[in-house]
Amino acid sequence: MSDKLTLSIDAMGGDDAPSMVIDGLKLAIEKDDTLRFILHGDEAQLVALLADKPALKDRCEIRHTDVAIPAEMKAPQAVRQGKKSSMWQAILSVRAKEAEGVVSAGNTGALMALSKMILKTLPGIHRPAIIALLPTESGLVVMLDLGGNTECTARNLVEFAVMGEVYARSIFNIEKPSVALLNIGSEDMKGREEIREAAAVIKDSQLALDFRGFVEGHDIGKGGVDVIVTDGFTGNVALKTVEGTAKLMSFFLKKAFRSTLLSRLGYLFAYGPLKKVKKMMDPRLYNGAMFIGLNGISVKSHGGTDALGFSVAVKQAATLARKNVLTHIRDEITHINGMLQDAPEQE
Amino acid sequence: MSDKLTLSIDAMGGDDAPSMVIDGLKLAIEKDDTLRFILHGDEAQLVALLADKPALKDRCEIRHTDVAIPAEMKAPQAVRQGKKSSMWQAILSVRAKEAEGVVSAGNTGALMALSKMILKTLPGIHRPAIIALLPTESGLVVMLDLGGNTECTARNLVEFAVMGEVYARSIFNIEKPSVALLNIGSEDMKGREEIREAAAVIKDSQLALDFRGFVEGHDIGKGGVDVIVTDGFTGNVALKTVEGTAKLMSFFLKKAFRSTLLSRLGYLFAYGPLKKVKKMMDPRLYNGAMFIGLNGISVKSHGGTDALGFSVAVKQAATLARKNVLTHIRDEITHINGMLQDAPEQE
Repeated sequence: MSDKLTLSIDAMGGDDAPSMVIDGLKLAIEKDDTLRFILHGDEAQLVALLADKPALKDRCEIRHTDVAIPAEMKAPQAVRQGKKSSMWQAILSVRAKEAEGVVSAGNTGALMALSKMILKTLPGIHRPAIIALLPTESGLVVMLDLGGNTECTARNLVEFAVMGEVYARSIFNIEKPSVALLNIGSEDMKGREEIREAAAVIKDSQLALDFRGFVEGHDIGKGGVDVIVTDGFTGNVALKTVEGTAKLMSFFLKKAFRSTLLSRLGYLFAYGPLKKVKKMMDPRLYNGAMFIGLNGISVKSHGGTDALGFSVAVKQAATLARKNVLTHIRDEITHINGMLQDAPEQE
Repeated sequence: MSDKLTLSIDAMGGDDAPSMVIDGLKLAIEKDDTLRFILHGDEAQLVALLADKPALKDRCEIRHTDVAIPAEMKAPQAVRQGKKSSMWQAILSVRAKEAEGVVSAGNTGALMALSKMILKTLPGIHRPAIIALLPTESGLVVMLDLGGNTECTARNLVEFAVMGEVYARSIFNIEKPSVALLNIGSEDMKGREEIREAAAVIKDSQLALDFRGFVEGHDIGKGGVDVIVTDGFTGNVALKTVEGTAKLMSFFLKKAFRSTLLSRLGYLFAYGPLKKVKKMMDPRLYNGAMFIGLNGISVKSHGGTDALGFSVAVKQAATLARKNVLTHIRDEITHINGMLQDAPEQE
């Protein structure tokens, strides 16, 4: 594989931390043994967990702290009081360039606030966004913003489009990912003002984006474009609606296969295919949302995930670092800043 | 059953109109023979279609017109030029009190614009909304607005909550439906300004609603509340995301069952349960979206539906009329208008 790569890990974040985190890292190095980790958390617990994992132990450096940000703590409180926490310290390792990215399964609001405060926003970017992958009929789609910003201007959406394109290029390894804006109709005159304005800006500014105009809710699962851009409110609702509907269908499937003796028999024969479908919709395999637009890679793992899910988030952080996503975003934004000067600014 | 009830039908709206419409009405009277219809459309075609359906023929009155609103016509054009169309005339029958509701599978934008123009908004309601039913783990949920208004004020959302509650009471036949606002978190401080304000207004105004605060995207499929209120942009994206995800899972299921010889065999055994699941997610069984908040019942059927789907929309219009939904909304709104006077107004 490639050169060594060090990631900073908030070992105390997540429902089953730190054991889930350590198990996740073990899985991660089984697939990529060039990874190195700086673990921020309770030393005694971490040493005990690493005791029977020599290969992982050799690749970890422990930085002790006995403070962890609780799951229910509000972001402003985390900013005021979280300085000694494993999360804060883990992000600091990125700013200090000891690590090329941070992964945490802890409190989302706190991670976002601390990442923004410590790493700062990239020059030219007005608002960072939450970006992640979702399953579609034709592979995966990159979607942002999934909850970072409840309201967005046209300028924000254009920046998201640029960042989403760079992210997709790195993750999918394709030359020219296609980008679309989420709307409630495909005609130019449909939808909210800021979306129509963003579409006009992208078209007029002759950005080198393969811009496909508007897509709708059903296109999220259909695929067809590589990147879907939306505001953080709509994106968050859409993401959770995908998860909810997948759960609903699993619920219906279970119920139907349990309904009669014959259907229970059917389940035995259908077991393989059903398991395959479950795997294709398995949120663990898409785990890891990046706060994109910051001076550093900060990846949020789902708090309730297991070792497999955490290892996927770790892998994602590593890929994004290796592909120099931040450098590419910096270049693109510098490149477009002139074109966008007429677009509305904020902050 | 109950007394006779007359509905006005846009016989020329929908991909397979008028034959799909007539077949749908035939199904509808098989389940409820108290229904009567005023059919607006091409007389020659309708007479021919009714020729071998004597029971339906006896229950229909044909009003000839050879104009139909095309599927791709923009709403403003329909308003300017659509006067002689089957859709316009069908809505007029409701205003003239010849019929207790109108059902059309035609152009959504045109039906909404014409319904609003001809029937007018109910006193006290600032914006009509699109309301419909969605499947959940615990039955059905009423959701609005599904696309009527891309931006909503707190006042709009409060009115939607009241209308949604009345609708749920009628359709579900329950005394006190629970109502929630769609948001991106359950805490009071989460989400957009207008949503938090609407929640505060509903709580403070001591409306007699069983108000459950905020729900999130995954709660749409989970059930747990009877009515979910949101703006028309978010609602439209969420609705289409549910449809898209259901399609995606069907796609994965098909693919998985086709993948090996054993899985093909499994499909034979799993056929019954899979069919049951397909039926539970079948959009035809939830067909029919009402434009709620107008002085008349106007129900939109999906344009691509078949006879079964159309009959469901017809049944819904009949139920809403029989339950006097409009009278109840009028009462509730009069009742709350005093309480809401401090809420922001518009239009």
